[in-house]
Amino acid sequence: MQIVALAGGVGAARFLRGLLRAAPPGQICIVVNTGDDREFYGVQVSPDLDIVTYTLAGVVDEAAGYGLEGDSFATVEALARLGHATWFRLGDGDFATALHRTQRLRAGAGLAQIAAEICAAYGVAARILPMSEAPCPTFVTLTDGRTLHFEEYLAREGAPDSVRGVDLSAARRAAAGPGVLDALAAADAILLCPSNPVVSIGPILAVRGVRDALARARAPVVGISPIVGGAPVKGPADKLLRGIGAEVSARGVAELYRGLCDGFVIDERDRAQSRDIEALGMHCLATDTLMRDAQISRALAESALELARTIASRKTGPRQTSRSAPHKTAPWLPE
Amino acid sequence: MQIVALAGGVGAARFLRGLLRAAPPGQICIVVNTGDDREFYGVQVSPDLDIVTYTLAGVVDEAAGYGLEGDSFATVEALARLGHATWFRLGDGDFATALHRTQRLRAGAGLAQIAAEICAAYGVAARILPMSEAPCPTFVTLTDGRTLHFEEYLAREGAPDSVRGVDLSAARRAAAGPGVLDALAAADAILLCPSNPVVSIGPILAVRGVRDALARARAPVVGISPIVGGAPVKGPADKLLRGIGAEVSARGVAELYRGLCDGFVIDERDRAQSRDIEALGMHCLATDTLMRDAQISRALAESALELARTIASRKTGPRQTSRSAPHKTAPWLPE
Repeated sequence: MQIVALAGGVGAARFLRGLLRAAPPGQICIVVNTGDDREFYGVQVSPDLDIVTYTLAGVVDEAAGYGLEGDSFATVEALARLGHATWFRLGDGDFATALHRTQRLRAGAGLAQIAAEICAAYGVAARILPMSEAPCPTFVTLTDGRTLHFEEYLAREGAPDSVRGVDLSAARRAAAGPGVLDALAAADAILLCPSNPVVSIGPILAVRGVRDALARARAPVVGISPIVGGAPVKGPADKLLRGIGAEVSARGVAELYRGLCDGFVIDERDRAQSRDIEALGMHCLATDTLMRDAQISRALAESALELARTIASRKTGPRQTSRSAPHKTAPWLPE
Repeated sequence: MQIVALAGGVGAARFLRGLLRAAPPGQICIVVNTGDDREFYGVQVSPDLDIVTYTLAGVVDEAAGYGLEGDSFATVEALARLGHATWFRLGDGDFATALHRTQRLRAGAGLAQIAAEICAAYGVAARILPMSEAPCPTFVTLTDGRTLHFEEYLAREGAPDSVRGVDLSAARRAAAGPGVLDALAAADAILLCPSNPVVSIGPILAVRGVRDALARARAPVVGISPIVGGAPVKGPADKLLRGIGAEVSARGVAELYRGLCDGFVIDERDRAQSRDIEALGMHCLATDTLMRDAQISRALAESALELARTIASRKTGPRQTSRSAPHKTAPWLPE
């Protein structure tokens, strides 16, 4: 069974840890958001690629949700002394990853090849594919009129409430990264990790050809809600959902994924929303999605895969129509 | 009294620490070898500039002779994991200096301006001037025919004996850095630190205009021998001296500086060579040059300055002829 998971960083990490326990790594391919990528201190940082790699390697700083466990911060501290703004706290080990990426990019290697090299060095057997090799910066516009790179919004400004909109136009113009569309076409199950739907899954869906590939895929597409009881488990998803006019709920996320997902997994605390979600044309499963330990993460991944299998067994033949008609009103999903 | 000191890295460090105790920092200008500069891991490293800056700031790792005291090595260790050859052990704090330099160079700043920024950040009041802003790599040729960048020779190969020659042709083609020739012209005393004469002082002397500026300078030029009792105090000077056919002795170094120096300070253990050195046209002073502590470093700097003052008081009028006729036979000093 070939599994393709669309993932951001922090929000996806625990789920991916579970997925790795639920399926052999050789069957797992993760398509990762690169909308947060940016040059910091002269080196090329891919926050979500690094988080996913470190997570699958078992070396991520679990408390922070990003960075290498036990990493030091001597370089950023010395950069601060040299007058640099160091709101992006890149660890010393993280610098090595970014230095490697920067050198290899300069030598002409592609982001996908570089991601594979970093995976090999860290012993990650699953495939990790950047959503695109073109620069795809995600911008957040605030009510005061300022437009910030997503990392400026998140790390520098501390994710303020005053979001007016999200600009995914760079991702809209970008071609999918090597292997991405093929992996979606060949998949037996496609999962949307419980990542931020607006700035993690959104950019991947915005990349040219990805939504078409999802619509044409023979595999069922199953999303997992990152919202539990009306609030995100981690991160600023509530502010960004509000900013694009969506409801901060499992149902609100399902609405964004309408026409894209065949199935949607929500937390048992949100079971009352099941009927509304089914009405959007998705099979809905309610279970424990608060991944307090590796066992719960694994159980959630198994539930999502089981839902995909159930959907696949029910439908043979061409794609159900609902998935080929993406929800037109979500402004973060360009037509 | 304006003092200009020509310096490499490790060999000069203890002497410069003494000089800083012997004169106010506002009177000190250090012209630093950039022949060891190279890109490592995608960042621009200036080993001697960094050693001199850290030394004057009092933050150098005194045991190693380079790098920041108490620095960590998480980035190089992570780079090793990523498959990089990490024989050049750049510390995490050192990476910040190199990242700053790399970014500023890319933004169009010059090496001298960047050196001043790093000095300001580290609270160094003395002026530190790169000998040149052009790339001036020093190459060492071995008897097996290989030609290595100096850092490859020193750090990667461990300074083998089999030196056949030293290539300073890049420095020969390079223009002096901003302020260098002016500082030499305005100096009251010019010191050649007890650095490696072949690969630390040699490249500075090779830079276009530097030997002319020394010949025309009104200030006396005083060298300090890095060789004591027939061996270098630190580093591979013996191998490099032998490699260019020079004697490994205070006298051997004085011969290389013939026509450049008015005075030469040697260790009291080498007092027997004084007469030979005087015969080269230099005033010779024998004293304790083994800088086991800061007091001895200071006393040595004071002795060198006192010798310069004595020479200056004896000669008024135009430069003595010996200094304007550089020794023609030293192959490392291009004509």
